[in-house]
Amino acid sequence: MCEVIVHGIPGSPYVRAVLLTLEEKNIGWRLAGVPFGANLTALYGEIHPFHKMPTLDHGEFRLYETLAILNYIDRIAPAPALRPLPVRAAARMDQVIGIVDAYAAPRLSAALSFPRLIAPMLALPVDEAAVRDAIDPAAEVVDELSRLLGGQTFMAGDSLSLADLMLAPHLVTLPHFAEGRTLLRQHDNLSAWIILVEARPSMACTTMERLLELTGIELLPIEDSA
Amino acid sequence: MCEVIVHGIPGSPYVRAVLLTLEEKNIGWRLAGVPFGANLTALYGEIHPFHKMPTLDHGEFRLYETLAILNYIDRIAPAPALRPLPVRAAARMDQVIGIVDAYAAPRLSAALSFPRLIAPMLALPVDEAAVRDAIDPAAEVVDELSRLLGGQTFMAGDSLSLADLMLAPHLVTLPHFAEGRTLLRQHDNLSAWIILVEARPSMACTTMERLLELTGIELLPIEDSA
Repeated sequence: MCEVIVHGIPGSPYVRAVLLTLEEKNIGWRLAGVPFGANLTALYGEIHPFHKMPTLDHGEFRLYETLAILNYIDRIAPAPALRPLPVRAAARMDQVIGIVDAYAAPRLSAALSFPRLIAPMLALPVDEAAVRDAIDPAAEVVDELSRLLGGQTFMAGDSLSLADLMLAPHLVTLPHFAEGRTLLRQHDNLSAWIILVEARPSMACTTMERLLELTGIELLPIEDSA
Repeated sequence: MCEVIVHGIPGSPYVRAVLLTLEEKNIGWRLAGVPFGANLTALYGEIHPFHKMPTLDHGEFRLYETLAILNYIDRIAPAPALRPLPVRAAARMDQVIGIVDAYAAPRLSAALSFPRLIAPMLALPVDEAAVRDAIDPAAEVVDELSRLLGGQTFMAGDSLSLADLMLAPHLVTLPHFAEGRTLLRQHDNLSAWIILVEARPSMACTTMERLLELTGIELLPIEDSA
């Protein structure tokens, strides 16, 4: 298999979802690390026309949009299986992936995990009123994910699927700050899911700390331009 | 097959993507029409916890998130095929679907088609400065879709796929207002694609006019609460 290169910022939950999938499929990868904010340059626009991340290069084939990348990896490396075969379980997998994109990413990661965990490292100011206003919308997401998980082990049934890998980067951050712990308090099933997912080797080798080390990127305080 | 019910507002591009897919698969459907704004009620929250649309009911199985619904329909009714088999074509299909969600929906439909085509019917005020500011971001989306379409007939190759059905409701509106026509001017391939897609019987029976008629919903001027 040609070398697989992933472009993106270490710490991006979308980048991590792709790296997790590559790890679970035992595919070697290299992270072409993008320093925080450098995705906005014209140069990076050649890699992703909307300046988001990640972008995957597989040989000369270039692809962006996280779900498309996860599906692509799953198609070029069918084992181990990361999609349930039963139609309704597959539908739940797709639904959770959609919920991550539409609700978990903005309401959990952007609105809460970023100001609580990343902003301090970059010495960015935090709008405390915005964080307070973000709690109720975040609770709606956590409640719904807990409802969909129900008594299952993983989001789409008894086996790990792409839904878990897409969701993991947005949920495993919650136990690391007070508001996140409060959000999880009444959802023992999600807390158990977080512990189960965190124990996977794929998680250990895709932490922000390891990705910073691998790419040699340093987190430097950003001058406040606000 | 149990009755398929789709919940949503006539005219919603996401609702139309699902109805198009059902039509292309020759599956009968009923639109449980939601009047404009009624998706925000607590009652509708039982149907979609985030108050978006559509939600599909297939017998007692309930599913929301448009992409999950399209995939579900494709799995329960495999013919005619709406996914390309080659891995890279499938990846392009997934990518276009992702682009629709992330960029086409907000930048084309919400920011331009809504104020130009829907707001007047509802007697809603239009922020002309916001419409002007929306042109450049919309052009980025149209440029990229044109680049991805290239010389192909459909978005993922020579055959119609879920990508075309997801995208169609956001693009076929553009020829109906001046800014939309300007956006398409230098993209003959997209203009040809629009003509090709518009000619499908599935499009004719999912127009907003027909859906309003089927559901008995009337578009009434909304009192400006701004």
